[in-house]
Amino acid sequence: MIYLDNAATSYPKPDKVYDEMDRCLREYCANPGRGGHEMSIISGKAVMEAREIISRLFGIDNPLQLCFTKNATEALNLGIKGVLKPGDHVITTCMEHNSVIRALKALEKDMGIEVTIIRGNEYGEIDPQDVAKGIKGNSKLIICTLSSNVNGIIMPVKEIGYLSREKELIFLIDASQGAGTLELDVKDMNADMLAFPGHKGLMGPQGTGALYVREGIEIKPLMQGGTGSNSESAFQPDFMPDMMESGTLNTPGIIGLKCGVEFINSMGLENIRIYKHMLVERLHSGIASIKGARLYNKRGIDENSGIVAMNFNGLESTRVSQILDREYDIATRAGLHCAPLAHQTLGTLKEGVVRFSVSCFNSIDDIDNAVNALREISGKYAID
Amino acid sequence: MIYLDNAATSYPKPDKVYDEMDRCLREYCANPGRGGHEMSIISGKAVMEAREIISRLFGIDNPLQLCFTKNATEALNLGIKGVLKPGDHVITTCMEHNSVIRALKALEKDMGIEVTIIRGNEYGEIDPQDVAKGIKGNSKLIICTLSSNVNGIIMPVKEIGYLSREKELIFLIDASQGAGTLELDVKDMNADMLAFPGHKGLMGPQGTGALYVREGIEIKPLMQGGTGSNSESAFQPDFMPDMMESGTLNTPGIIGLKCGVEFINSMGLENIRIYKHMLVERLHSGIASIKGARLYNKRGIDENSGIVAMNFNGLESTRVSQILDREYDIATRAGLHCAPLAHQTLGTLKEGVVRFSVSCFNSIDDIDNAVNALREISGKYAID
Repeated sequence: MIYLDNAATSYPKPDKVYDEMDRCLREYCANPGRGGHEMSIISGKAVMEAREIISRLFGIDNPLQLCFTKNATEALNLGIKGVLKPGDHVITTCMEHNSVIRALKALEKDMGIEVTIIRGNEYGEIDPQDVAKGIKGNSKLIICTLSSNVNGIIMPVKEIGYLSREKELIFLIDASQGAGTLELDVKDMNADMLAFPGHKGLMGPQGTGALYVREGIEIKPLMQGGTGSNSESAFQPDFMPDMMESGTLNTPGIIGLKCGVEFINSMGLENIRIYKHMLVERLHSGIASIKGARLYNKRGIDENSGIVAMNFNGLESTRVSQILDREYDIATRAGLHCAPLAHQTLGTLKEGVVRFSVSCFNSIDDIDNAVNALREISGKYAID
Repeated sequence: MIYLDNAATSYPKPDKVYDEMDRCLREYCANPGRGGHEMSIISGKAVMEAREIISRLFGIDNPLQLCFTKNATEALNLGIKGVLKPGDHVITTCMEHNSVIRALKALEKDMGIEVTIIRGNEYGEIDPQDVAKGIKGNSKLIICTLSSNVNGIIMPVKEIGYLSREKELIFLIDASQGAGTLELDVKDMNADMLAFPGHKGLMGPQGTGALYVREGIEIKPLMQGGTGSNSESAFQPDFMPDMMESGTLNTPGIIGLKCGVEFINSMGLENIRIYKHMLVERLHSGIASIKGARLYNKRGIDENSGIVAMNFNGLESTRVSQILDREYDIATRAGLHCAPLAHQTLGTLKEGVVRFSVSCFNSIDDIDNAVNALREISGKYAID
């Protein structure tokens, strides 16, 4: 099987992820930070180590400002709902995932926040100056994805972060695509909050994600519960990360994520980025030479985090993806990718796109096989 | 090592849980319900199977009314915040965990809900008639734990459910303790919502939990995001379970939970209950015979889900737990157990309790060793 659906969930993971999760579950998986017994202490230490290693990857000085979540969706909802109040204005972009757009639409409806969505060109590239123009007196928060989950376009987060800091707004980056591939330092980017999943580019398992919140940002949790701290109190603690981490954490998942990030560190982020770009470039060129193929992504290393989005004229994206799966054993994702505005921007709201997303575990052969398969599909189904 | 901290996280798990999680991660862990490719379909089917098997355990007719969460805390927050509106009145008990109490306290402060807490006797037993007396014109929701996480006391949820149905209130059961041990049918109990973790009595891994919501209950999600459904829409779907399951699910965790429940089914819930009671009874009797020991739990099979709570006169609970860990390699939990009102009820708000919580993997030897250790501690530290 050739797996090219890494933007959904990366597969495979580094062996160390499997091995250490299994060891954790079998040998020491007690409740981290609750009991005082040895297993609980080992679990707690492992979670703290994960917090530190992940923080280091993103230039986060104080690992306690990083809270673990079940996925990026929870991290984004926490960040968004934790800081917004009725009457606040939010600026975001046309390339955001539904985990941002749907959360904002719900707040617009229920709480009377205002939302401005910055439009981009046909690839979803936006002009940071348009963000600047969108800022108003009641603006509170800017949310921008690091890279689109539909076509991999890399957004100008550094420029937006600069603007945001200048205007003293809160800047939240959604690094769901790009974390684990692109260099990302929260201080460099002036990011006040950073949300990311564990199970995509960071090579951890599903059930993991995190939100970084800069010290000084006033934020409220979405949930209250047991935190193993201030247990005598019926009120939620007001310090990070406990405030945001109610209930038992996913210890084996977090251990797996730690091993995923260690793998990235051992490979070198820049090497991963260059290798993935080489695969994207090869796939893009290959598809560009096929009759009837349309491409929706840019191909430059600074323009794409690892996704090729395409369609065949006159053939549904879901059909292409199905043929790739059934006849060629190639896994891709088709249709709409939980980002309707991005599809609108690319002009693919109706048909969706066939999305190929690569990881550093893909080989050049994988790419060549995919291109050959697409060429055959093009020939067989006689698309012009 | 003798592990008696199963009320925090059960350990060990059935081998099948480890094996199948590992197989899932290594072989087929794609994004369930998103891609149309084979791995994604296998993941999606496995999650659906888990939904069905777990639903059956609790007499839930429509598995689509069960949504997966990261833990019971999320499930409880979802249930509580999903149905309450400003001005609503909630009735709950003195034996609830902070995942209920802290969530209610936050809503009381932020949203102006009213909370009545029903007091119990020195074991936390409450009289359902007190619940009946607490019902007012603006009462909307009753929340009751199935069994206390501090002393294992089993609450009269059936009687409360009957009352609740009679008065057309919403009844939410917190089955964090007791699920996987006690017979629990949502129809029998008149439960409108049921929240539970996967990693305790259900023998699944951390990072899992679920909320059942009866058809017809009007509920809102806490988070919005990608659901793999209605992807063309910027609004959250309004049907279960998609409405409540934004973002990528913890597929390997859910598979593990499924295997945990299958194990329970293969053993027989009633056999587990009887075996755990035998262990509790033995531990309780043993401790009762030790000089200077105080016990805070009831011992009958219908009064205890599997917890023995004790203290030594004049010795801090954390110190006892530490000695048990360091000198005897016995894992327990001491101090406050994220349930301040329960400790107040038992009269242990200051010192906490040493909590022994058993699983069906504990042996009679484990219990006898724990009793012997406590006897030695009593002798050595000369407590009267």
